[in-house]
Amino acid sequence: MAVAVKGAEIVILAIPVGACGEVARKIAGSLAKDSVVTDVGSVKQTVIDAVAPHIPPHAYFVPAHPIAGTEHSGPEAGFPELFQGRWCILTPLPETPLRAIEKVTALWEATGAMIEFMEPRRHDLILGITSHLPHLIAYSIVDTASQLEDHTKAEVIKYSASGFRDFTRIAASDPVMWRDIFLNNREAVLEILQRFNEDLTALQKAIRTGDGALLQEVFTRTRAIRRAIIQAKQQ
Amino acid sequence: MAVAVKGAEIVILAIPVGACGEVARKIAGSLAKDSVVTDVGSVKQTVIDAVAPHIPPHAYFVPAHPIAGTEHSGPEAGFPELFQGRWCILTPLPETPLRAIEKVTALWEATGAMIEFMEPRRHDLILGITSHLPHLIAYSIVDTASQLEDHTKAEVIKYSASGFRDFTRIAASDPVMWRDIFLNNREAVLEILQRFNEDLTALQKAIRTGDGALLQEVFTRTRAIRRAIIQAKQQ
Repeated sequence: MAVAVKGAEIVILAIPVGACGEVARKIAGSLAKDSVVTDVGSVKQTVIDAVAPHIPPHAYFVPAHPIAGTEHSGPEAGFPELFQGRWCILTPLPETPLRAIEKVTALWEATGAMIEFMEPRRHDLILGITSHLPHLIAYSIVDTASQLEDHTKAEVIKYSASGFRDFTRIAASDPVMWRDIFLNNREAVLEILQRFNEDLTALQKAIRTGDGALLQEVFTRTRAIRRAIIQAKQQ
Repeated sequence: MAVAVKGAEIVILAIPVGACGEVARKIAGSLAKDSVVTDVGSVKQTVIDAVAPHIPPHAYFVPAHPIAGTEHSGPEAGFPELFQGRWCILTPLPETPLRAIEKVTALWEATGAMIEFMEPRRHDLILGITSHLPHLIAYSIVDTASQLEDHTKAEVIKYSASGFRDFTRIAASDPVMWRDIFLNNREAVLEILQRFNEDLTALQKAIRTGDGALLQEVFTRTRAIRRAIIQAKQQ
């Protein structure tokens, strides 16, 4: 592994976030002068904590997270337009020289991505809401279905086009990648999960008590977010 | 309303399920001899209970549920291929003559839909899993986001492509239609919601305690369901 990075100007850690620290340790001795190490992980603070201490003084670590992808993983899952018009968030350390950051910026801009900068913990909170919680929920609902008796499960699969199917796509994402994301963004995920549980419990109570007014109010409120996303062209 | 159905061979109740009983009562006196009333509701047992008593002896009620649609509603949201290759579930009453059922079957087959028959309560359970619970979860998670402070909400919208966006599409469905679905399929939804809550709580605990093995096991198990859906060509 160390051999592969020798003389490289940029090294991209495109691996599950839980493996970044160990790989950084292994390649540290082979990093060229002024080389830049970057990553593509969905969690930033724990990756910084794990990687940064291994980077020698003559090299730089610029954490990055391109927000693009499908439920498929591996090199075969890539396609030329994957990053076109998508955000790539950089969470550089305060002491990193601008020229190192600019190398990573140029790399992602060349793929058609749009660059944004964020504090690592802020990134982890926002992605906890937009990505990690939705994936956890999707995994959970598909797992509930997977535990049904066979006859019922077959019918659920047959009639999955009615909503369930969309969740199975999300829940088909790489298990190791997602295991690591949850283990490395624990606090933010648990915090937002608690809020979600409160809101779901309120809906559950409304169904149990037949509170149609509350249900309609919530279902109307949620449409505004959809409209905002369409306006933001993230649809 | 009564005038509109006079002389009609088939009357389709394409309205929120909570309105079906009242509309059936209003049109009952105008139904022609041997005419067939059908519906498109996502819940079947309560619709049968509400509609059937109003249908006069010279007409028939054949409950139906075409499983197709988008987050948009109203006549403008239709398109010619909407039902092509999609299931339409009929839940006829035991005493209904075959010729009445065949009229509804022919109607849906003409749209390209595939017909399946089911007991009404079985339909409500299966759709509770495949459609009603996913919609409730999607509404809930989008509502959680809608209650965030404005600055955070703006960032959630900006980075919504990472999973959240898919939920907002589902949560943009018609509020009155969905209010009625939950009020009319209360038991099945609450039952499956309880199972979902148990599974989510187990994942929550695994994240809190750092149980990576359990997370990976669940995330691997859920992929099998996705493969089955792709094989069933419901993808």
